[in-house]
Amino acid sequence: MKSQTAPSLADVARRAGVSLSTASRALNDAYGVSAATRARVLDSAAALDFVVSPDARRLAIGTTGRVAVVVPHIERWFFGQMVSGIERVLSEADFDILLYHVDDAEDRREFLARLPARRKVDAVVVVAFPVGEAERERLELIGAKIVAAGGQSAAYPYVCIDDFQAGRLALDHLTSLGHRRIAMIAGSDPDQPGWPAIPGRSRAYESALGALGVDVDPALVRDVDWNPVNAAKAMADILDAAGEPPTAVYAHGDELAFGVLHTLRHRGYRVPEDISVVGIDNHPLSELLDLTTVAQDVGGQGAAAARLVLQALGREQDEPGADPGAGVVAPVHLIERASTAPPRT
Amino acid sequence: MKSQTAPSLADVARRAGVSLSTASRALNDAYGVSAATRARVLDSAAALDFVVSPDARRLAIGTTGRVAVVVPHIERWFFGQMVSGIERVLSEADFDILLYHVDDAEDRREFLARLPARRKVDAVVVVAFPVGEAERERLELIGAKIVAAGGQSAAYPYVCIDDFQAGRLALDHLTSLGHRRIAMIAGSDPDQPGWPAIPGRSRAYESALGALGVDVDPALVRDVDWNPVNAAKAMADILDAAGEPPTAVYAHGDELAFGVLHTLRHRGYRVPEDISVVGIDNHPLSELLDLTTVAQDVGGQGAAAARLVLQALGREQDEPGADPGAGVVAPVHLIERASTAPPRT
Repeated sequence: MKSQTAPSLADVARRAGVSLSTASRALNDAYGVSAATRARVLDSAAALDFVVSPDARRLAIGTTGRVAVVVPHIERWFFGQMVSGIERVLSEADFDILLYHVDDAEDRREFLARLPARRKVDAVVVVAFPVGEAERERLELIGAKIVAAGGQSAAYPYVCIDDFQAGRLALDHLTSLGHRRIAMIAGSDPDQPGWPAIPGRSRAYESALGALGVDVDPALVRDVDWNPVNAAKAMADILDAAGEPPTAVYAHGDELAFGVLHTLRHRGYRVPEDISVVGIDNHPLSELLDLTTVAQDVGGQGAAAARLVLQALGREQDEPGADPGAGVVAPVHLIERASTAPPRT
Repeated sequence: MKSQTAPSLADVARRAGVSLSTASRALNDAYGVSAATRARVLDSAAALDFVVSPDARRLAIGTTGRVAVVVPHIERWFFGQMVSGIERVLSEADFDILLYHVDDAEDRREFLARLPARRKVDAVVVVAFPVGEAERERLELIGAKIVAAGGQSAAYPYVCIDDFQAGRLALDHLTSLGHRRIAMIAGSDPDQPGWPAIPGRSRAYESALGALGVDVDPALVRDVDWNPVNAAKAMADILDAAGEPPTAVYAHGDELAFGVLHTLRHRGYRVPEDISVVGIDNHPLSELLDLTTVAQDVGGQGAAAARLVLQALGREQDEPGADPGAGVVAPVHLIERASTAPPRT
């Protein structure tokens, strides 16, 4: 006879002929229960309509309750902020975050190719790198949703800034002050040395100069690994190589601009009297270094990416199921500080 | 009749009377299979002695293959470095990292109290905060090992630096240059405002001055939330409040020292000619800001903490089982840069 009240774990254990703790272990998938015992307990739970835990409920609705966040760097500011924003929103929705640090393009391809076999997650957030078509298809085949944070994709939902727009804000600020001889420190793609990691920020440079009829002078442009020390060396290199120093420097990111500021100070150039410097990001230390920059809210982008995950999993009530390719372009804005001024006449 | 070769997934599916994909989903715990079907497939797999995946093997040996890393901050440099070091070693050992961001002391207590009920992890690495006795007992009861990174504990294995020693290295450097009027910017414990987050670094200040017969002047000491902007304000406050400015400033961390440098520059003090500044950490930007500091290898501490996890789980061959309270004290060393010099006479 079926009981009128909800069945207890003791009912499940009794029916399966096991102890309470064995029943609990079996239902929680975890601790040294034989497959046969586990099957008996699950049979018993199924017969009694017993639901034990969030994990069991998740199994019933076919989810793992986990989201993978895959980052090419953990220790850099941008990635920390991004992961922090993603974690905040997903943990509120009762998801766990599996964090994967995957280094170069080959590692990332291999990792994403292996992920479906593991079937550990409901969704994957890739931070600041693209997912190849083959990996995407494999992930979607097993039902794992993909969301891109800090990078754009036509094939799945994304959150990012418009890098060209961010670059133009920085450069238009310099050109409106009267600068024409502007150096660029570009962060290069570690997988394709010599190519910019963020091509939109390089296109902004070409476009801003082109609009004023100024040719790009290769002596004023350097691509460096995304690291302030490399940027400091690149700045020294530009000062050594270029006959006349630039009147302003445009760095693809604030961390690169910090290296530029270091070299200029050590070489005896005053900022902004002799040379202006502008970055992109609004890194937490930029305010302290008086750096003019184009600000983006990275934690907010992480939170937005997490909300796209919830939508894709049908967990947001108003917008069930995300459109593939639905994108969020986060706003950017110029913050003028004391590192930029008109060029000396 | 039992087959001589290893059973295939197809054998399991046939015996259970389900499709190949249903059998696979059932064995992988993940995607919308009814409890009854799942039980039938598990029965079939058990009868055939079928082992399908790393997850299934892990179940057989009673582990989850997951380690929780619990941090009070993600976006700050120290925690990013630490998580990066932990992830590198544990992912090589084929563990997944569950990342939890837990804000204040109450949240942390609640999180750790809830964790056993979830039974999701084999071990917990707590970064830079203590685990209460009650939480520790609950975690150990269910077999989850605890390791502390960035903080010390008598009750479980830990990796940290000797904060008193680090502080004394910084202060002995200043006093050996001849400084006696030394200000301190201490990072305060967000859960106990007004108390230092890292008491060893405050004790070093009292001890170094005491050894020279110098009394601590409260006008020269400020506790601030761990944030460069707060440190900048605290430095301004000291300059406003103290009749005579200090000849040197000791900051509990480089990020606090960056705020100090900002205020000194804005107030027209030259570093180190007018005022010397020393920090602790060797933050990646300290080199660029010419900051004298006491260096610690945070990523290396994360890696060491991960190795303690592997030991505690019996995964390191030479040292099976870690001693409770076995600690690794990571080395620190002074790096002299251009922010410190003898006081003006």
